Amino acid sequence: MEIMQVMGTLVCSFRVAGLDHMHLRILRNAKGKKLVAVDPVGAREGNWVFTASGSAARHACPDNKVLTDLTIGGIIDHWNPDG
Amino acid sequence: MEIMQVMGTLVCSFRVAGLDHMHLRILRNAKGKKLVAVDPVGAREGNWVFTASGSAARHACPDNKVLTDLTIGGIIDHWNPDG
Amino acid sequence: MEIMQVMGTLVCSFRVAGLDHMHLRILRNAKGKKLVAVDPVGAREGNWVFTASGSAARHACPDNKVLTDLTIGGIIDHWNPDG
Amino acid sequence: MEIMQVMGTLVCSFRVAGLDHMHLRILRNAKGKKLVAVDPVGAREGNWVFTASGSAARHACPDNKVLTDLTIGGIIDHWNPDG
Amino acid sequence: MEIMQVMGTLVCSFRVAGLDHMHLRILRNAKGKKLVAVDPVGAREGNWVFTASGSAARHACPDNKVLTDLTIGGIIDHWNPDG
Repeated sequence: MEIMQVMGTLVCSFRVAGLDHMHLRILRNAKGKKLVAVDPVGAREGNWVFTASGSAARHACPDNKVLTDLTIGGIIDHWNPDG
Repeated sequence: MEIMQVMGTLVCSFRVAGLDHMHLRILRNAKGKKLVAVDPVGAREGNWVFTASGSAARHACPDNKVLTDLTIGGIIDHWNPDG
Repeated sequence: MEIMQVMGTLVCSFRVAGLDHMHLRILRNAKGKKLVAVDPVGAREGNWVFTASGSAARHACPDNKVLTDLTIGGIIDHWNPDG
Repeated sequence: MEIMQVMGTLVCSFRVAGLDHMHLRILRNAKGKKLVAVDPVGAREGNWVFTASGSAARHACPDNKVLTDLTIGGIIDHWNPDG
Repeated sequence: MEIMQVMGTLVCSFRVAGLDHMHLRILRNAKGKKLVAVDPVGAREGNWVFTASGSAARHACPDNKVLTDLTIGGIIDHWNPDG
């Protein structure tokens, strides 16, 4: 799993079926790359989270047929990115 | 999922079975790398989209046996690549 | 899927079961990295092809239990790597 | 599999179901990147371990439905990172 | 699949179940990165091999539930890394 920070929410009116009702967050990884993740935990902007990728990302959702390759798995209590 | 921009359509007359009737788009990611994705949503050149990769890419297609490792999942309403 | 160019054929007399009778091609990606792919379409040296990776690579073969993580999916009609 | 060193334990009170009772370790790979892994072997800070990623990470756990994309597979007896 | 060179054998007394009796080799890829692979073919130090990653790595083993994300698929007859 990787550690990323939540930057905001992605608005995407026109999308494929299988993602309805799931929030999409914009995350930034340690290198500054922006990624999009499904969020089943309700993370907020600025939160540090860990993410599961690949097929594990689907197991992290209530419905494991949700179309995702990156899902937020939890919010980290304390994180110092340089520590 | 990753955020990419549509550059055009890939013409490929000779290909394996299992991709028939699906459009193939050429996308460019944040680093400028060109990738090929199956497009079930009808994205147009210049659109910013998010893509699902790996096994999730197949779940994003109407027929989940389609041979793909990258599928467009939705068109982003507003995106500022530098914002 | 990624776009690569065929460089040649890999000769490998001693290999695991599950790849017999499949041709192995040496490909070069946009960064110059050399990779090995199963070729069900009969690509030739110099051809530009697109490849499916991961579990999708197996779906691209006639027998989807073939041991592969990279398979040529089609030959591109026209490709200008710098275009 | 990759070789990484254990840096510590990740504290994460609020997380999705499917990871309960599994320890999460912070690992550092050869490039210095920090990753989070499930630890079924009881590795300690400073240990050199090898990790399985992707769907193999789930097979490395007692319960193979555990939500993980990176799992510690074993502790290496002797390792010289520069050797 | 990728082309790598065998550097040696990894000794790992304490590891998870599901890898017993399989040899673990240390490999080096084209960039000099060291990786660990399961070896069902009996490769020796200095051999050039090709490897299957991801879920394909499990199909390359006699028992396809073996916990691996990288498996040696064959020994290359002739290879010139700079050729």
